[in-house]
Amino acid sequence: MTRPSERANDQLRSIEIIRNYTKHAEGSVLVKFGDTHVICTASIEEKVPGFLKGKNQGWVTAEYGMLPRSTGSRMDREAARGKQTGRTQEIQRLIGRSLRAVIDMQKLGERTIHFDCDVIQADGGTRTASITGAYVAMVDAVSTLLAKGLLTESPIKDSVGAISVGVYQGIPVLDLDYIEDSDCDTDMNVVMTGSGGFVEIQGTAEGEPFSRDAMNEMLDLAAKGIAELSKLQQQALAN
Amino acid sequence: MTRPSERANDQLRSIEIIRNYTKHAEGSVLVKFGDTHVICTASIEEKVPGFLKGKNQGWVTAEYGMLPRSTGSRMDREAARGKQTGRTQEIQRLIGRSLRAVIDMQKLGERTIHFDCDVIQADGGTRTASITGAYVAMVDAVSTLLAKGLLTESPIKDSVGAISVGVYQGIPVLDLDYIEDSDCDTDMNVVMTGSGGFVEIQGTAEGEPFSRDAMNEMLDLAAKGIAELSKLQQQALAN
Amino acid sequence: MTRPSERANDQLRSIEIIRNYTKHAEGSVLVKFGDTHVICTASIEEKVPGFLKGKNQGWVTAEYGMLPRSTGSRMDREAARGKQTGRTQEIQRLIGRSLRAVIDMQKLGERTIHFDCDVIQADGGTRTASITGAYVAMVDAVSTLLAKGLLTESPIKDSVGAISVGVYQGIPVLDLDYIEDSDCDTDMNVVMTGSGGFVEIQGTAEGEPFSRDAMNEMLDLAAKGIAELSKLQQQALAN
Amino acid sequence: MTRPSERANDQLRSIEIIRNYTKHAEGSVLVKFGDTHVICTASIEEKVPGFLKGKNQGWVTAEYGMLPRSTGSRMDREAARGKQTGRTQEIQRLIGRSLRAVIDMQKLGERTIHFDCDVIQADGGTRTASITGAYVAMVDAVSTLLAKGLLTESPIKDSVGAISVGVYQGIPVLDLDYIEDSDCDTDMNVVMTGSGGFVEIQGTAEGEPFSRDAMNEMLDLAAKGIAELSKLQQQALAN
Amino acid sequence: MTRPSERANDQLRSIEIIRNYTKHAEGSVLVKFGDTHVICTASIEEKVPGFLKGKNQGWVTAEYGMLPRSTGSRMDREAARGKQTGRTQEIQRLIGRSLRAVIDMQKLGERTIHFDCDVIQADGGTRTASITGAYVAMVDAVSTLLAKGLLTESPIKDSVGAISVGVYQGIPVLDLDYIEDSDCDTDMNVVMTGSGGFVEIQGTAEGEPFSRDAMNEMLDLAAKGIAELSKLQQQALAN
Amino acid sequence: MTRPSERANDQLRSIEIIRNYTKHAEGSVLVKFGDTHVICTASIEEKVPGFLKGKNQGWVTAEYGMLPRSTGSRMDREAARGKQTGRTQEIQRLIGRSLRAVIDMQKLGERTIHFDCDVIQADGGTRTASITGAYVAMVDAVSTLLAKGLLTESPIKDSVGAISVGVYQGIPVLDLDYIEDSDCDTDMNVVMTGSGGFVEIQGTAEGEPFSRDAMNEMLDLAAKGIAELSKLQQQALAN
Repeated sequence: MTRPSERANDQLRSIEIIRNYTKHAEGSVLVKFGDTHVICTASIEEKVPGFLKGKNQGWVTAEYGMLPRSTGSRMDREAARGKQTGRTQEIQRLIGRSLRAVIDMQKLGERTIHFDCDVIQADGGTRTASITGAYVAMVDAVSTLLAKGLLTESPIKDSVGAISVGVYQGIPVLDLDYIEDSDCDTDMNVVMTGSGGFVEIQGTAEGEPFSRDAMNEMLDLAAKGIAELSKLQQQALAN
Repeated sequence: MTRPSERANDQLRSIEIIRNYTKHAEGSVLVKFGDTHVICTASIEEKVPGFLKGKNQGWVTAEYGMLPRSTGSRMDREAARGKQTGRTQEIQRLIGRSLRAVIDMQKLGERTIHFDCDVIQADGGTRTASITGAYVAMVDAVSTLLAKGLLTESPIKDSVGAISVGVYQGIPVLDLDYIEDSDCDTDMNVVMTGSGGFVEIQGTAEGEPFSRDAMNEMLDLAAKGIAELSKLQQQALAN
Repeated sequence: MTRPSERANDQLRSIEIIRNYTKHAEGSVLVKFGDTHVICTASIEEKVPGFLKGKNQGWVTAEYGMLPRSTGSRMDREAARGKQTGRTQEIQRLIGRSLRAVIDMQKLGERTIHFDCDVIQADGGTRTASITGAYVAMVDAVSTLLAKGLLTESPIKDSVGAISVGVYQGIPVLDLDYIEDSDCDTDMNVVMTGSGGFVEIQGTAEGEPFSRDAMNEMLDLAAKGIAELSKLQQQALAN
Repeated sequence: MTRPSERANDQLRSIEIIRNYTKHAEGSVLVKFGDTHVICTASIEEKVPGFLKGKNQGWVTAEYGMLPRSTGSRMDREAARGKQTGRTQEIQRLIGRSLRAVIDMQKLGERTIHFDCDVIQADGGTRTASITGAYVAMVDAVSTLLAKGLLTESPIKDSVGAISVGVYQGIPVLDLDYIEDSDCDTDMNVVMTGSGGFVEIQGTAEGEPFSRDAMNEMLDLAAKGIAELSKLQQQALAN
Repeated sequence: MTRPSERANDQLRSIEIIRNYTKHAEGSVLVKFGDTHVICTASIEEKVPGFLKGKNQGWVTAEYGMLPRSTGSRMDREAARGKQTGRTQEIQRLIGRSLRAVIDMQKLGERTIHFDCDVIQADGGTRTASITGAYVAMVDAVSTLLAKGLLTESPIKDSVGAISVGVYQGIPVLDLDYIEDSDCDTDMNVVMTGSGGFVEIQGTAEGEPFSRDAMNEMLDLAAKGIAELSKLQQQALAN
Repeated sequence: MTRPSERANDQLRSIEIIRNYTKHAEGSVLVKFGDTHVICTASIEEKVPGFLKGKNQGWVTAEYGMLPRSTGSRMDREAARGKQTGRTQEIQRLIGRSLRAVIDMQKLGERTIHFDCDVIQADGGTRTASITGAYVAMVDAVSTLLAKGLLTESPIKDSVGAISVGVYQGIPVLDLDYIEDSDCDTDMNVVMTGSGGFVEIQGTAEGEPFSRDAMNEMLDLAAKGIAELSKLQQQALAN
């Protein structure tokens, strides 16, 4: 089998992580996983939601959206329809959980980090690109808190990144693009920390149920891919 | 460690699957996973959604709800708030995908099976009970189609069941109840066919990230639990 | 004329009132008027709505819903449609007024009793079954307040029950089931206290306008029926 | 007892029915029950709702609204809040049923009459004024159909009017104004045809439950009041 | 060219400003620009919106609506559809800005004036009639504050009025009615103070773009028209 | 007076118009007016809205949005709030009208061009940048229709651009940035064709009313600015 993109089965797309993409947000990243481009901003708000008031801890939450023509055919604008789809809500909940997994809420203090992940061009893997880019935006946003003396120590415990894996034409492959995603048997999104722990695994049999062996192969690919992403995150932050 | 319910680590709660629970639906099941009680109905509609018209295939879709006082403290009624939560949408999408995985849409013909899973009492594991009960309701609903001669062959390819597993106080355990679910490190919902293929895996690190070993232990427990559920489904259907 | 159910004109359906039907609510009743089955829960909340704050009185409010397949053909789920129908709102306002009529808000103190009446199987008369069952749930909920010493005296002044009456094929009959309800000339819902006072009367000419004589006959039937329901409520509470 | 308005117990407020109040609608009436002023328009649309297509019959439906400052303190605008209250829906359903009771849907033909009852000044009894005025607008709208030859015979079978009655300071009174309505023990809205049949009765005990005797006295008052309204409707239509 | 109404090109329609049209509002005006009739009420509320709390200033805000059959063919009721159209929001924002331009918020003190402009009959120019009538209602509402001693000095700095101008069949005309508005090349709404300053100009080319000369002619007409409206406002207030 | 940006009073910000910014849309432009950055896409759909079916003409419509953190402090996401603000609706209606003014709907044929203008970074003037960029996207989208032979002749009649002008500290200035916009006396948005006709003028007195002279000076500035924008549009399209 040859992948439509001619990548090797364990090969990521070309990844770019551009910091300070827009000027207002405390953290602002344009992340590219091939032709999938997502703007990830981290906004600091010096208060917490009602259910956390007075509990001496912070909060992290995420929202996700796609520009109507980020996709091959134009989608309805969610703001005009008056509600977010189930898919949107599922993705933004996943992004929020993934980032909360690597931050110490007590150390963050009584403030909220709002993430906004907006897809400006989509080609598969928008949720994994969002998590990977949002982590970098989080580091930048926390740096502004440290620089202002609002924090003396970073509350970030580890890095976090995400990648999709799947079974395409019978073969496990890494980082599915849209063509592969539309035609795969199994689709799995994996979120891992920089030190290799699992944060989330969401695997779905699109066609036939998948076996334990297939899952093990997919997880091996994911671990390899996220390790590479982790390095790219560190490089971007080092610039 | 002793589980709060004093169950063994690999022990399901007491499971009951009561067919023909209400009289109008083509399939109607009350499923109990311990103190979690869900009414699962399957309703046949002799048409398909717009996007499938004329494609010679059927559709399966699911909705999920909780009665406002199915829980320890009363929740807002979603119909009164005017929208379903992200959690509700996530669960009903999961139920729909799980059932679609075991039915042949071409053989179903141009009709829709609507599932409604309504939790009347909650004690953890409402989504896994819903999937397990809905499968039985689906078999009953398909039987009415066979009995009326609308189908000559069942479109159901396999059975499907679901269970939660998690790491509670450091130990992998099967079928978490509410107390365990509220205090576990990792929570994983697994959906498998009767013949042992994976349909969905959704694992989340609630506290610390989890290791590959922990995941393997959880999957072993899940496979054991779903095999037991599969037998209970067959027994219920044999009555 | 013979009624489709072969009941006498002044005969109720078989009535069942099952207490403690679910475990979380302070009062939880499954009420059956023949094939109409409704779960009625009473939930105590230790605060009042904004407009009553600081007024030294309590509040009682009700919500109503039908499971999508409680009926012969599946209805849309109100939570998915994003709003409650006018019929639903009309019924839940009626239930709330009926229960408020028999409770002393000053004696209740600054707390709210929320009723949820959820129809799991419908065969006509869901609103009258809801009121009749909710009263029993209210007594149980108040008992928990008395047991905890939060109240020293019951604020409940009287019992309350409800029944439908109508003119079916020219003859006044008691407690219409779905077949009768769909084909009657007049449909009247009557709510009365245990001591025989009227709380609500809602009569509608579905076909021809009705006469004062017909109304008097219907009210006689209703008074008889509610007196019987009142006994059944007391019996259920005595167990 | 003296009524706040010094009216006799069986005395209506000053009633005015002004036809052709606005110029676009097929029927347009400004109805005044004392200080309660409602614009009632009847609009003909040459089609029926989906559920009646091809059934050779017409439809009649009503909507109701209050201008935000029709009342003593400003209410929220329902269009701005994004939904109609339960009270609004209850009233517009009542108006629609009342008008449907006196029109032959087969004779109306495949068209819809939409009623809009908009309260520009409120002082109690807005729903009864609405029904009474809307009937007159309906006659005018039907006249335009007869004049154009779209109908050869009026589908209107009878006139319809409505009035409130109540028990105020222990005494049954006719046509409650706002002061009485806010402080009465029982409030009953009665809808009757010109020939004296009951179309709707909605009675509510606001304070103590009411007796059968009180109800009979209220119905006597209502019958007297609606007979007077019926004459005023005929007079308005004769001009 | 002759205008459909046979008015001169610089001639307003017949204008009427009727004060105290309804009894509850602090200011209540029925304004007529020919067959365009709008009820404008001003309601005083002794608090300000959250974003102004503690800032020692008042607020002025406006809402706008059309009765469903104020127009030639019935429009959907916005309250029933569950949202206001873009046109409605645009108009109510314009009305609010226009009134805020002539009132000193500090002198108004910590209170809000809510305007409601409800069109009961439409024939073009509803927004300009609304602004012109709302100004008069504002003066009356402020008079109640002065009369009660809640203010010692009027916060109103100037009067404000509005008129439409346009290019109809190639000729600039004043105060377009519906026939002209539906068929004009350019439509411009102008809001000016009594002393001749511009508050708002909103001009739109409906067909061909318009020239600077055409705009100058339209502004001359608008200035003349608003000067006349200003006199009519003063006359109405003098009565 | 010196402008905060040190620009001359009649000087535009640095303008950039980048075509083919994203890959899926038929026209896709990133337009920059200084620090205001907007993605404008034009999407062709081969059908028209219901009200135009069978009328042998096309349609052009626009939607507008701001990423939540395109601004100095994070705004609520409209999709999450469930509705678009009045401001958003006002702007998207303006964009749509402006583009419709320069396209021949008959020549466009029975198809729709949907514009999406999404602000990724805001610094004042987002609506004028949107219109200016959307025109370029429209030309590119029409080129795809010509290239495919779906059109043989361009339906575009003229170019269109927009700019803001205002009175800042007493002096008329061109192309206000956010600092100027927040503190100006008058704010006017002007839309003109390449050949110098006016399409829209929307001027608002934020503080004091403005004079006819001030308006004339602002219009001179606007005409100069739009002429420059027109050249930049042609240059971008020539590349």
